[in-house]
Amino acid sequence: MDVGELLRQVKKGTIEPDQAEELLKNLPYEDLGYAKLDFHRRLRTGFGETVFCQGKPDAYLVEIYQKIFERDGEVLGTRATKEQHELVRKAVPQVVFDPISRILKVEHPDKKRSGNVVVCTGGTADIPAAEEAAQTAEYFGSRVSRIYDVGVAGIHRLLSKREQLASANCIVAVAGMEGALGTVVAGLVECPVIAVPTSVGYGASFHGLSALLTMINSCANGISVVNIDNGYGAGYVATQINRLAVR
Amino acid sequence: MDVGELLRQVKKGTIEPDQAEELLKNLPYEDLGYAKLDFHRRLRTGFGETVFCQGKPDAYLVEIYQKIFERDGEVLGTRATKEQHELVRKAVPQVVFDPISRILKVEHPDKKRSGNVVVCTGGTADIPAAEEAAQTAEYFGSRVSRIYDVGVAGIHRLLSKREQLASANCIVAVAGMEGALGTVVAGLVECPVIAVPTSVGYGASFHGLSALLTMINSCANGISVVNIDNGYGAGYVATQINRLAVR
Amino acid sequence: MDVGELLRQVKKGTIEPDQAEELLKNLPYEDLGYAKLDFHRRLRTGFGETVFCQGKPDAYLVEIYQKIFERDGEVLGTRATKEQHELVRKAVPQVVFDPISRILKVEHPDKKRSGNVVVCTGGTADIPAAEEAAQTAEYFGSRVSRIYDVGVAGIHRLLSKREQLASANCIVAVAGMEGALGTVVAGLVECPVIAVPTSVGYGASFHGLSALLTMINSCANGISVVNIDNGYGAGYVATQINRLAVR
Amino acid sequence: MDVGELLRQVKKGTIEPDQAEELLKNLPYEDLGYAKLDFHRRLRTGFGETVFCQGKPDAYLVEIYQKIFERDGEVLGTRATKEQHELVRKAVPQVVFDPISRILKVEHPDKKRSGNVVVCTGGTADIPAAEEAAQTAEYFGSRVSRIYDVGVAGIHRLLSKREQLASANCIVAVAGMEGALGTVVAGLVECPVIAVPTSVGYGASFHGLSALLTMINSCANGISVVNIDNGYGAGYVATQINRLAVR
Amino acid sequence: MDVGELLRQVKKGTIEPDQAEELLKNLPYEDLGYAKLDFHRRLRTGFGETVFCQGKPDAYLVEIYQKIFERDGEVLGTRATKEQHELVRKAVPQVVFDPISRILKVEHPDKKRSGNVVVCTGGTADIPAAEEAAQTAEYFGSRVSRIYDVGVAGIHRLLSKREQLASANCIVAVAGMEGALGTVVAGLVECPVIAVPTSVGYGASFHGLSALLTMINSCANGISVVNIDNGYGAGYVATQINRLAVR
Amino acid sequence: MDVGELLRQVKKGTIEPDQAEELLKNLPYEDLGYAKLDFHRRLRTGFGETVFCQGKPDAYLVEIYQKIFERDGEVLGTRATKEQHELVRKAVPQVVFDPISRILKVEHPDKKRSGNVVVCTGGTADIPAAEEAAQTAEYFGSRVSRIYDVGVAGIHRLLSKREQLASANCIVAVAGMEGALGTVVAGLVECPVIAVPTSVGYGASFHGLSALLTMINSCANGISVVNIDNGYGAGYVATQINRLAVR
Amino acid sequence: MDVGELLRQVKKGTIEPDQAEELLKNLPYEDLGYAKLDFHRRLRTGFGETVFCQGKPDAYLVEIYQKIFERDGEVLGTRATKEQHELVRKAVPQVVFDPISRILKVEHPDKKRSGNVVVCTGGTADIPAAEEAAQTAEYFGSRVSRIYDVGVAGIHRLLSKREQLASANCIVAVAGMEGALGTVVAGLVECPVIAVPTSVGYGASFHGLSALLTMINSCANGISVVNIDNGYGAGYVATQINRLAVR
Amino acid sequence: MDVGELLRQVKKGTIEPDQAEELLKNLPYEDLGYAKLDFHRRLRTGFGETVFCQGKPDAYLVEIYQKIFERDGEVLGTRATKEQHELVRKAVPQVVFDPISRILKVEHPDKKRSGNVVVCTGGTADIPAAEEAAQTAEYFGSRVSRIYDVGVAGIHRLLSKREQLASANCIVAVAGMEGALGTVVAGLVECPVIAVPTSVGYGASFHGLSALLTMINSCANGISVVNIDNGYGAGYVATQINRLAVR
Repeated sequence: MDVGELLRQVKKGTIEPDQAEELLKNLPYEDLGYAKLDFHRRLRTGFGETVFCQGKPDAYLVEIYQKIFERDGEVLGTRATKEQHELVRKAVPQVVFDPISRILKVEHPDKKRSGNVVVCTGGTADIPAAEEAAQTAEYFGSRVSRIYDVGVAGIHRLLSKREQLASANCIVAVAGMEGALGTVVAGLVECPVIAVPTSVGYGASFHGLSALLTMINSCANGISVVNIDNGYGAGYVATQINRLAVR
Repeated sequence: MDVGELLRQVKKGTIEPDQAEELLKNLPYEDLGYAKLDFHRRLRTGFGETVFCQGKPDAYLVEIYQKIFERDGEVLGTRATKEQHELVRKAVPQVVFDPISRILKVEHPDKKRSGNVVVCTGGTADIPAAEEAAQTAEYFGSRVSRIYDVGVAGIHRLLSKREQLASANCIVAVAGMEGALGTVVAGLVECPVIAVPTSVGYGASFHGLSALLTMINSCANGISVVNIDNGYGAGYVATQINRLAVR
Repeated sequence: MDVGELLRQVKKGTIEPDQAEELLKNLPYEDLGYAKLDFHRRLRTGFGETVFCQGKPDAYLVEIYQKIFERDGEVLGTRATKEQHELVRKAVPQVVFDPISRILKVEHPDKKRSGNVVVCTGGTADIPAAEEAAQTAEYFGSRVSRIYDVGVAGIHRLLSKREQLASANCIVAVAGMEGALGTVVAGLVECPVIAVPTSVGYGASFHGLSALLTMINSCANGISVVNIDNGYGAGYVATQINRLAVR
Repeated sequence: MDVGELLRQVKKGTIEPDQAEELLKNLPYEDLGYAKLDFHRRLRTGFGETVFCQGKPDAYLVEIYQKIFERDGEVLGTRATKEQHELVRKAVPQVVFDPISRILKVEHPDKKRSGNVVVCTGGTADIPAAEEAAQTAEYFGSRVSRIYDVGVAGIHRLLSKREQLASANCIVAVAGMEGALGTVVAGLVECPVIAVPTSVGYGASFHGLSALLTMINSCANGISVVNIDNGYGAGYVATQINRLAVR
Repeated sequence: MDVGELLRQVKKGTIEPDQAEELLKNLPYEDLGYAKLDFHRRLRTGFGETVFCQGKPDAYLVEIYQKIFERDGEVLGTRATKEQHELVRKAVPQVVFDPISRILKVEHPDKKRSGNVVVCTGGTADIPAAEEAAQTAEYFGSRVSRIYDVGVAGIHRLLSKREQLASANCIVAVAGMEGALGTVVAGLVECPVIAVPTSVGYGASFHGLSALLTMINSCANGISVVNIDNGYGAGYVATQINRLAVR
Repeated sequence: MDVGELLRQVKKGTIEPDQAEELLKNLPYEDLGYAKLDFHRRLRTGFGETVFCQGKPDAYLVEIYQKIFERDGEVLGTRATKEQHELVRKAVPQVVFDPISRILKVEHPDKKRSGNVVVCTGGTADIPAAEEAAQTAEYFGSRVSRIYDVGVAGIHRLLSKREQLASANCIVAVAGMEGALGTVVAGLVECPVIAVPTSVGYGASFHGLSALLTMINSCANGISVVNIDNGYGAGYVATQINRLAVR
Repeated sequence: MDVGELLRQVKKGTIEPDQAEELLKNLPYEDLGYAKLDFHRRLRTGFGETVFCQGKPDAYLVEIYQKIFERDGEVLGTRATKEQHELVRKAVPQVVFDPISRILKVEHPDKKRSGNVVVCTGGTADIPAAEEAAQTAEYFGSRVSRIYDVGVAGIHRLLSKREQLASANCIVAVAGMEGALGTVVAGLVECPVIAVPTSVGYGASFHGLSALLTMINSCANGISVVNIDNGYGAGYVATQINRLAVR
Repeated sequence: MDVGELLRQVKKGTIEPDQAEELLKNLPYEDLGYAKLDFHRRLRTGFGETVFCQGKPDAYLVEIYQKIFERDGEVLGTRATKEQHELVRKAVPQVVFDPISRILKVEHPDKKRSGNVVVCTGGTADIPAAEEAAQTAEYFGSRVSRIYDVGVAGIHRLLSKREQLASANCIVAVAGMEGALGTVVAGLVECPVIAVPTSVGYGASFHGLSALLTMINSCANGISVVNIDNGYGAGYVATQINRLAVR
């Protein structure tokens, strides 16, 4: 029931003003005391609530998985651990864990995917963040291709994938160390590039700061950047863009 | 002529191997000695070459404006000064300068614009970067709405624009100081939000670093970030997304 | 008219649902196009709208001063310049400018002040930020005492003011360089201390960063910190606390 | 006996000058050799001495708990571990440990609390710092309400608590990641907001630096900031303010 | 077969255009799915592919060692662990591990080395990075001398090695803490100095940042710098220079 | 009159308790309102009050110079400008200005100097900070030798001054860029070395931060560091040490 | 006369021990009081003394140019200004100034150049640092080719220069903003690449810090890095390497 | 035998030139291959060689302790662990370990100490660094007094120790968190203050950076600073100064 309808019912007298005032305040989230599950979210943004598992107390985590699973029949969590997997599957036995991407999820088996998101990485060590992006995009209904280990220090590897890149609606470019992958990719294609700096590297990479600065300062057009190792965020934005393209 | 065609002509003998080798190497840019104008760009990325005016030596700047204008009949430059305007208009009299956005351009008069990009700012001091974004998006064919001075310290101002925000294909959120605008906007809408940190602020804002970190660390989904004050970059990405939506 | 009243009128039929929906959305700010003056603010927070003059375009600035002055009969702006003073006083002749604090204001002549806010500084170079704090607090109705140049390198100067410090409802401690004033003051008194780091210093003071870190890391209890040189913010918080004390 | 009284007794001859000189020097702290317990503190600042447990050698810690407990009948320590709990309760069996807030304390059972401090968090991961703040404020006699998981990425959750926020004497806003909670809260209320950045986040959150900068640069009025994860400091300042309000 | 030859065969008809187009695209790397081994590398740069072991998943690591060893008869990996050694030697029994340099390699037994690379360190704690440099240079065919523990705080130790330094084609200067070794060495010799900052130190050394800044700001001529602890990179560049000298 | 004497007079009745209480509070500084001149300083620390000219408002500066000159017959100010010289000499005609060190002073003509402080620099651009140090030390009575432009990139220049260095009671080592001078000097001598980082350099010298970090991380013993460009501070400490040596 | 010879003459009695001791100490630099010209340098390192003009006092600068010119018949200075040119040419009329590279020099007219150094830039704004590198290398006898404006955002421009790059003995890669040029170049060639980060950019480029970090973290082999904008340093190292190659 | 004597013997013929040349080169350090023990040090600087234990490989550590102990009859190491203690005492049974200061040493039992060094700390957590300073100074022959837990948040604790501070030849002020102890102490005394920032704190203390900046920016005169937690360095400098005072 939306505000217009509500007000019309007040006029008709089927709802009392006091009651209406209360309804106007009550927003559709479920309050677990310590957490407020945002079931309104799917309506508001087109994406269901997901779970950032890292650091969640055990009891909270299990209850959150249960609640979302009960309501939606599926649930996606990121940054999970093997221990959290053990824990959650006692309550939600369908849950599966991927140790590379650290995604812990139940997914509708016959989900239809559409569009074309490409996820590429500079090196093999960037694959965990890339898989977080790719699987997030897939969970939200995007069709995803992966092009891994095509860093700019051997530019011919990247150039040989040019056609595949050119066909994407959105490209997620995942790279650590000096993080130049996004710039080169963006110079080759027409679609937006979401750059994900990773914490891969050592010394003056400062846990991803160097790659982040590289990407933020990119001299190429068409790049925007998410947080270090934030594959989830990139997969989410890529899906938003992909959905616009396939509408 | 693409590579396949070229190779077929080699087979037919209409092109000699040596000549073909040369053609394979020659790429369609114009070499001014000090600069390489990338006319191939429009084909490759769907966007024409633009000019970053800041710090360009006078003679270079004028010649670049002339070359692009001659070829495309229009030209967009960012971060220009009044002095550069004086200079360029001797060679390209049609050029106009907007002191707020610092854009120096000639634009086709009857450009058709489509789609829906919203550009919003936290404060009035963020308007220069916002205008750079808005006018860039317009130059590249996007229809743009502006919602200025709706920062999160008075959240009611932003909430009253909720419907307008919800109708966008892409939102550019421009904010300095603590830079929280992007997060709140992204929590309200379905479309991607491009966040532009600005150097507005003082003290520990560190010329935009604080706003950049806020945006990169956003706990909302659907945000990606460009460089501090990089309105051009945001307008460019917003156009890419808008084009996908209106295709 | 509050929401309850509005809904009752909908029930009575004196307001139509559509009209009510519109009213619910319309919030009491005045839209100047480029800026949204928040006249609702005084009701919501107990403080009127003020003006951050730095970087405001001339035409905007003058109009904002006029609008606020017309409505409130007084107006306070910070970080103003002599040039802005010249400009504004053409439209609002009553306006006065203090070159130390850089405050540009019209103030009701017989404002009653109450409570007890103490503003102290480490050195003479911290006086501009201190005066911004003191005059802001006075504008919002606080009685203010000033204790300047009592930095911790000559601790006896500070200790001789102990009684005066002890009588305050709130103390604003303004210091640059190593910024230790707040810690020592907080160790001597019962009331909250608002610490203002200043950009005074050179070398590794990094324009106030050193003082900011010192204050944030204070080992004393009862300190909280505002931005570098943010006298206005400190004067504002001090007034909030002072008001609670004199209620 | 204060200085005036002391001097009068010197005049009367009941105290010898040498003895008086000594008394003037002796300040009421207890010297444990390695630590100086500041029993004078309660008189000077209105708050008893507390214990920062982190990194304290075992023998020191136990002795400090004993000394304070003996004198005051209660004792509050922060940043304790389960191991420290085991240790201290051998000497002070009444001591209880809360693993969320990491507070290790004995508290007078029938402590009367007054006033109204609200503690709110952006997410569930911010609860440990929030509980440190809430329990500290309660220990020092404040009545505290908790509003958790109302971060700005889903602004409706926060807005539905508007009335509760508006009734506070002081609000403690605890948030990590981009840390924008304080700004939005401060825009809604009349009372001071103490912002606590937390180290919650990853990547470019830099262990709370991003949230700290956001809060320090807040464009809202009425915010001041304490150290990253410093719930104790915020609870302390909130109590100071609350006491002024309920005087 | 190079492009010229390929095109001549197209002309002759021995290769079809379609086939030629495919060949032009296929570059000589082996795609393991997750990684692209760059066997073309030795031709392109004169150096074979090596392995950065840190963080490589076990299965990947073993397969990469096998592939390279099969093809080249030798293989060099850096930043390996004892556990990785155990793992790899099940597949490649010849592999040996040096716990100081953390190099895990098979090397042709009678490799001829030539030229003169000197590797020197400031302290004994810098030896791991120095050995990574020295053994890398040796693997790629350089003759290497080591001069360890000659830091500038006891300048006579360094000066007594002056002749040995003067005879080098390239010097690798490895130092942590304040990192001044490179400057002093470069002031004594004619050949290029590659400076390697190390993460050795504590406090304000910030894990090598201080040494990195020292070296980048060197007032001596003839210094260039690689990443913190990047012995491999320094050994590589030193070999490039040494090869030019002995050509 | 000290506290003991004061108390004895109270006992005798020559001073009333109230009066005594007041005297105990009154400390020997002169309050100019905006500044508190610390005439007690010479007694407490053995050094007279000096003036940090940078940023002092004109009227304040002149009055401070007058007050100190009247009382002490001499006065030393640092970081002065030519304009401040013009201003001050109208009130204190004896004042002289040195544009290299930016010292503005009146000095007793026949000051006896003793001991042995050596001030050395890495380059010629470090001379301003070095002269500030040298002249400060001379003002406070130290005999000073200067050894300039002996940076470590040409270590033989420094080594040839070895004897002169060895004779010092304290050495001030002034250097920018990579700032390694202090380390090498400290390795050669027995006396303490005060290192002064300077803002000389460019790029990654970050206005002296690099030199500061180098010096703070020095692997030599016997170095301590003052702020960037803080010649005054170094000259002061050097004098303290020199005085101890010549006592 | 070397040490061996000297000692033999002491034995023969042609040189007295005292005299020998003196000779051992006297090193061949010319002491101007404020500066020590290092004429020994050419012998020691194979390169003559040059002048870093920035910030040199006028009188010093002129005398240094004169001394070096008198002795060597040529002189190279970097970071000069037009004003310094005016000044120096009164004393050394042959001196010429290039406003792009800011080099102020007299150069032997028929200098023979050999070898092959390539200097390339990412954009046109990087040309000043590139010219400083190129002209420095030429001054020291290297043959230099320039390839400007071949940044990685349009990778085809760079790839078309592949052969030219492959023929170099050393490549200097000059780039600001995200600074990825060095990595891509190093992946294409066999010779060492000296990367020069420039301060070109804005926002989060932090005056070259971003480019510096990118280059230091390069995932390509064969790169080493000099200070931000340090074209001179890169030209110097490139010459050292080029000399080894052409020996 | 010094150089003069050596040369005279060459003249007399008792030493051959070749032999003399060799002797001139041979400096009195003992080369263990991986480390160069600097036995010349005691002569050159008046202090024997000490050992920085952290990170030293076991075999090296034991051999170094043995060598120094054999020669000097005593040995001091810092930053040792319990494990290193176990190891070393097998070879040098007299060695004792202090777990607070982490010093591992053999010390001559009847060492005469003289002078007066005061070591004070802000809190109890700063005691480890303070003890490293105190015991180092004692090892090198200084008489040391300790004043612990006198931080500036309770300034009366510090002021009551005023006389003890005033009697020192040198004060070492050790403090973490906001690190203001050094400034207040330096304002009270005549002697030099060596400030040691410690890594004590959390959040924005950034492992001691905040305290380091505070101390470097101190507005008091007479402070110089050593590295974070560098008690050894402070104890060393304090001894140098103390020796000058007691000469």
